[in-house]
Amino acid sequence: MKARVHVMLKTGVLDPQGEAVRHALGAMGFEGVTGVRQGKVIELDLAEGVTEADVREMCEKLLANTVIESYTVDMG
Amino acid sequence: MKARVHVMLKTGVLDPQGEAVRHALGAMGFEGVTGVRQGKVIELDLAEGVTEADVREMCEKLLANTVIESYTVDMG
Repeated sequence: MKARVHVMLKTGVLDPQGEAVRHALGAMGFEGVTGVRQGKVIELDLAEGVTEADVREMCEKLLANTVIESYTVDMG
Repeated sequence: MKARVHVMLKTGVLDPQGEAVRHALGAMGFEGVTGVRQGKVIELDLAEGVTEADVREMCEKLLANTVIESYTVDMG
């Protein structure tokens, strides 16, 4: 079984990495990119019996810094 | 319009970051996690008229290192 976790900076938290990407795209001639946010994606291979609640606990305790980051979990 | 780009290390490329996460989860008592791969997710806000082909060009030229990374583009 697989789970995919997305961790993004919360809205309102400055994202200098995303801003650097946006700036670089503009400098390379790509127009029409008005905003960039960069986050992490973590793919977990899970043994049978691991539930979405378990994965959410992993997020809370390790994978995301919930002060500044939000996360979503997709199972399957 | 939004686009979401996932950039992952190709299969067979060592992922020390993912391995560190797997190890840490085990040390914290989470069992049943047999593998972890970590990648990047990049969310782009796009002006009208920017196509998926444009986003793929951004991936090829800047967002992904196609020697060791693969990417997927989701529009919408």
